[in-house]
Order: sequence, then C-alpha cells, then structure tokens
Amino acid sequence: MSTRTDTTHFNCRIEGRIATVQLDRPERKNPLTFDSYAELRDWFRDLVYADDVDVVVFASNGGNFSSGGDVHDIIGPLTETNMKDLLAFTRMTGDLVKAMVNCGKPIIAAVDGICVGAGAIIAMASDMRIATPRAKCAFLFTRVGLAGCDMGACAILPRIIGQGRAAELLYTGRSMSAEEGAAWGFYNQIVDDVEAEAQALAQRIAAGPNFAHMMTKTMLAQEWSMSIEQAIEAEAQAQAICMQTGDFERAYKAFVAKENPVFEGN
Amino acid sequence: MSTRTDTTHFNCRIEGRIATVQLDRPERKNPLTFDSYAELRDWFRDLVYADDVDVVVFASNGGNFSSGGDVHDIIGPLTETNMKDLLAFTRMTGDLVKAMVNCGKPIIAAVDGICVGAGAIIAMASDMRIATPRAKCAFLFTRVGLAGCDMGACAILPRIIGQGRAAELLYTGRSMSAEEGAAWGFYNQIVDDVEAEAQALAQRIAAGPNFAHMMTKTMLAQEWSMSIEQAIEAEAQAQAICMQTGDFERAYKAFVAKENPVFEGN
Amino acid sequence: MSTRTDTTHFNCRIEGRIATVQLDRPERKNPLTFDSYAELRDWFRDLVYADDVDVVVFASNGGNFSSGGDVHDIIGPLTETNMKDLLAFTRMTGDLVKAMVNCGKPIIAAVDGICVGAGAIIAMASDMRIATPRAKCAFLFTRVGLAGCDMGACAILPRIIGQGRAAELLYTGRSMSAEEGAAWGFYNQIVDDVEAEAQALAQRIAAGPNFAHMMTKTMLAQEWSMSIEQAIEAEAQAQAICMQTGDFERAYKAFVAKENPVFEGN
Repeated sequence: MSTRTDTTHFNCRIEGRIATVQLDRPERKNPLTFDSYAELRDWFRDLVYADDVDVVVFASNGGNFSSGGDVHDIIGPLTETNMKDLLAFTRMTGDLVKAMVNCGKPIIAAVDGICVGAGAIIAMASDMRIATPRAKCAFLFTRVGLAGCDMGACAILPRIIGQGRAAELLYTGRSMSAEEGAAWGFYNQIVDDVEAEAQALAQRIAAGPNFAHMMTKTMLAQEWSMSIEQAIEAEAQAQAICMQTGDFERAYKAFVAKENPVFEGN
Repeated sequence: MSTRTDTTHFNCRIEGRIATVQLDRPERKNPLTFDSYAELRDWFRDLVYADDVDVVVFASNGGNFSSGGDVHDIIGPLTETNMKDLLAFTRMTGDLVKAMVNCGKPIIAAVDGICVGAGAIIAMASDMRIATPRAKCAFLFTRVGLAGCDMGACAILPRIIGQGRAAELLYTGRSMSAEEGAAWGFYNQIVDDVEAEAQALAQRIAAGPNFAHMMTKTMLAQEWSMSIEQAIEAEAQAQAICMQTGDFERAYKAFVAKENPVFEGN
Repeated sequence: MSTRTDTTHFNCRIEGRIATVQLDRPERKNPLTFDSYAELRDWFRDLVYADDVDVVVFASNGGNFSSGGDVHDIIGPLTETNMKDLLAFTRMTGDLVKAMVNCGKPIIAAVDGICVGAGAIIAMASDMRIATPRAKCAFLFTRVGLAGCDMGACAILPRIIGQGRAAELLYTGRSMSAEEGAAWGFYNQIVDDVEAEAQALAQRIAAGPNFAHMMTKTMLAQEWSMSIEQAIEAEAQAQAICMQTGDFERAYKAFVAKENPVFEGN
C-alpha cells in the first residue's frame, strides 16, 4: 500500500522511503487542531500497511515544532463540552500516540524552537529526538489548568528522562532547554541543522533491515510492562522470526564476501 | 478537613497552603523512631482529605535531613523480634511510602547534610528533591546487614536514576554526592539555601491547578506497571475529568483576557 | 555446593569467594559459540546453589570483552536453520540472561575494548559495569540483519540508559563510547585498570551481608513489572526475612561495640 501525501491538515512528502511530516501554519507556530489530530491519527494508522515508507521524520516548520492544541480552535470549545465529548477528544489525542507507537516505522522528531503541549507529546512519542540549541520543550498542561497526564506523558516521559525530572516538568509546566534535554536523554543529539541531521539519521536507519526495525519498535512497546522473564521469551520468539528473513542471510553473505549488505526489508 | 500541625514526633507547620514537615532531634541528625514512622504514616494518610494544604515540603533540620531508623530505638529491638512483629514493622515503614505516594499532594524533599537509610527512602518517595552541595544520601541498609529492598527502593530508585546506578548504591550502601545526584536525576536542583528554594518551588506549584496536580500525582503512580495502551486510556479518562474543572475554564478565560489565571483547585 | 572451575568453553577461577569468568580466544576478541552459550547458562544456573562464591566478575580477555556470537560458528549455521531450531537457539541465549538475572550473586562486568552483540548483552545483564576509556559497546544486531530485541535488550537497556538512548543504539547498532556510557548510567565507573577495580568492588560487596545481597538481586528483578503497592509489600516480606539473619544481629552488635561487622552470609 502506498502512503498518502495529499494530506489536508499537515504537510507530507516522501523521498527515498522516508516520509517527512510537519504541522502547518508556521505564523502561529504550527498549532494542532481537531482536524490535524484526526488526520495524523489516520495517517499513522495507515502507515502500518505502507510498503513505500521505512522511517518517518516529524519535522519543524518555520523555526518551530508545534505550539500544541490551538487555544481558540480546541481549548475554547472544550471548556463548553460535555463529558461524553470530552472523553471522545482525549481518546482521539491518545489514539494519535497509540498510532505513532504502533505504526511499525521508527519516527525521528526534528525539534526546533517551540515544542509545547501536544507538540511536546508528539516529540516524546517519537522513537528518537534531535533538536537545535533553540528548542524549548514544555509539557505545559498545568498552565491551562490541566493535569500532566495527557496522551501518555506520565507513563512515557519518566522512562525517557527519569521519574524525578519528569515529575518536575509535569507539575511546573516549565520549559526544558535543549541542553537539559540532551543531558537527560530526551534528545539524542543537539545540532544546528536539525532537518539535515534528522534526514541523515533516517537514511542510515532506512538502509538497515526494515522488517527487523519494525520488530524492534514493536518489542520496545510490547515489553513495556512485562516481567524480565516474559520479555526474554518474547524476544526469543521475535528474533527467531527475524532469523528467517532474507536480510539475515544477506548480511551473512555480504560479511563472507567482505561487502556491505544491501537490505531489502524482508 | 484541616491538617493537624500539633504533631508529637515530628515538626509540622502550615503557611499559605504549604505544609512543611521535618524530623526532630537535630543533635542526632533527626533519626526515625517507631513513633515518628507511625505518626508520619497517619499524617500523610489524612492528607488525602485535607483542604488546607496543596503541597508538602519535607525539610531538613539543623543541617541534616535524617539519619534513618534509630540504631538504639529501632535496630536493637528488631534483632530480638519474632517474624510476626518484624513483618508488622516492615509493613509499617512501607505504609509510610504508600501514604506519601497516595496523599494526592506533590511532595518536595529539601535535603541538606545526612540523608541515609529510611531518610534516603523518604527523599526517594517524594515527587521532587532539592539538595545542598553538602547532601550525602546513602541507601545503607547493607551496612546494617540488610537488603537494599527496603520500603520500595528496588522498584522506585531505578526509575529515578537508572537500573545500573541504583544497583551500585543498593549493593554497596555508599554515599551519593550532591553532584552525582544532580547528574543522575535524583536531585532536581542543587542550591545553597535549600529551604528557601523548596518553599519557592512549592509556592509555584501550589499556585497551579491543584485538583489537576492531584491527578498528575495519582497517574504517575497508577501507570507504573501499565502497558502503554492502558496508560493512554487511563490518561484520556483522567484528563477528561480535569477538563470539567473550573480551573480549566479559568485558564482559558484568563488567556482570552490576557491576564494570569487564578486557580481555585476545583 | 562448590562451583565448577574446570569449564571447557570459557575461563573460570575462584579467589576469595569471588568467581571471575571470561570468554576465551582473545585473538578473535572472545566470540561466543553454541558451546560457550550453553556452558555459561549451565554455570550460572548452578551458581544459585553455590556456597563458595558471593560475587561474580565477568572479565575481559586480552584487551577485549567479547565480539559476540561468532559469525562462522553461529551466524552462518543459523541462516540455514528451521524455525524449530532457531527458536531453540534464541531461547538458549535468552536462558543465559535469565540464568544471570536469577543466579543470586551480584555480577560485575569489567569491560575493555570490544563489547558487541551478545557481548554487549552480557554486560547489560550484569548488575554493574566498569569500563576502560577504550570500551566500545554496540548492540549491533541490526548490522547482521536482525532486530534489537535480542536476549532482553528492549526491556533491560531502556531501564539502564533511558528509552530514547536505547532506541537509538538498537536502531542504528552504533558504538556507545565509554564517555557516553558513563554519562548515561550504563557504566558505573571508567578506570584504566578495569580488572583491578572490578575485583576491588567485588571484594567490597562480598564483604557485605551476602544473603541480603541475594535478596537485593532477587527483588531488583522480581519488582520489574509490579505496581508500586505490590513492590512495597514484596519488600516488606523480603526485608523481614533478612531481619531474621545473623548478619543483621552481627551488624547491630558490632555497632554497639564500635567495631566493624564481620558478615557470614546467613
């Protein structure tokens, strides 16, 4: 199945098996809207079946990543919404994170400038994150009267940066600087040209065994709350599956022939 | 319900919706006793229902946080205790951690000087930790012939500083310096005037939406061993609840009016 | 039961209640073979019953830790193996990690030079890790066409260095430098003479209460996927057991007598 790039509420392009998506409206720092949430959720859900994309870059736009849920488009209406519809909304936003986690392709967030609220969540829900020194990331739900438990933050953020640092960010809503983010393991790298570096990392990963990458991504999520014993058995099964792929044999033959392997993702 | 400040076995004061507690007997570096364990457990249990306290500061006293379980008052008697009463004791100490985790108010530990044994556990079981450069924190159970698995340390400490660092501290009982603690994410900040800084952070947090903070604290514990999918659904429900609070609406109206929101905790 | 040191496929010696094991064939950087996997698994399984060993050092050999699964001995044959036998192999390698985790004695990896593939897993599955500045550790499964989910890596590595850093290492297969490993909590220490330092740490730990150390090790694994409440109850039980050991009383008596305790591991 080929991946849609004619999206309406966010930008999308595919080059060399790498899909690059970015939120739009840079003049407002790329806020999310009801429509872009839903379209992103559907796009990541479809990505499971895509055979033209191996890695996703979630890019910034005009110097910023995202200002999060739009105050006028989203927050205003929600203050007048009944519980049934509120839960439908929080489930839809959570479904975007689930779709990202379950899409089967590594996701690299390329974070420049403002990255707050649901924008910070999208960065957090990516597999890896590269940022510029200008990146300011804030889980600022508390600033709008809400809790830090938004779209999985109380579960996922502590596993990335540790429980104590996550608690501070979630209770205060304060900005995490690029320097802090790198020291704490939120960012994998700080670079000036974040777009180029994210694309280069994406290409490196896309040149690898992409069926196996899908399995790595699956198991990183799948083993989240398993015991050690369960996780080891789950990996024995998952890796045995990978050992029956052609890519495993291709790597071995290339090694014997003293060549670089060319992986085909099967 | 208003919070008791006439405590017998530890000091307690309330100022501006912030409760500050501290162990007593600074001349002996504030050891814990059977009585102070029990009274702290009861005090944190009652805090769930308190409507006069939003944040707790667990303070040092006389230049030290706590020397842990008193050797004469606690360790001596325990060496002559039968299994039934030993388990009653270890459950009581564990119940203090449970009560801290479940009290619904963010807890900030302000760590100066000695912070060892059960004192280190109290710091660990707090949500955030600020320390002076003089702080010496040791999970020294091994020094008294015991295991590192005390009051939740084998579960909680690895999630704060990582599994490998936690293992070293628990097997050796060695001191973690303030510098190490900051680099590893145990401490959120190192400052000279830890009491002032902890109070300032407490005030910042207490000025926020305190019902939502309670939900953040609840979910940080609640999602501990959930799968990612379960955690996201749990947060969708928790955040939908917060979206029906007045504080969410207050934040929105303040934003529209270009004012700072005044939260009321409901 | 006394521990076998007449091993065939790896080196083993016991000195002063510390067992030091190391892979062999330094001229090939100490690869693992079917035979050494199986013998290591059996050796660690037997260690549960050993009363002559308190701590294990997994040492380097000839300037390297291990080059992982031998390409000719293991990878070649696996490319021609059916699913039944592939699963038997991945389960055997996973069983080595399970045996290390369940052996009841703290394990210190002393990492010099190359530490890759299954070698990196052995270091990861140890309780603590000390390295030289020359250590190069890579979870390079992706380089041979496989997934990062090998022998528990997707569960264990994130708990040591954080989810984002683990994801990068597992997707790219790149080397983690000694400096990175120390900053991220993979290594507890970087030293030039890693063998001497690992032995010194082993002696310090072996001089402690070894029954209690066994309980610490057990609970670090056992509480992996428990809720906080379950973990605290589990520790109340485990510590109550330790309070009935002689070592607990020995520590108290030594304290009262102002002497250093001499622990006996019971």
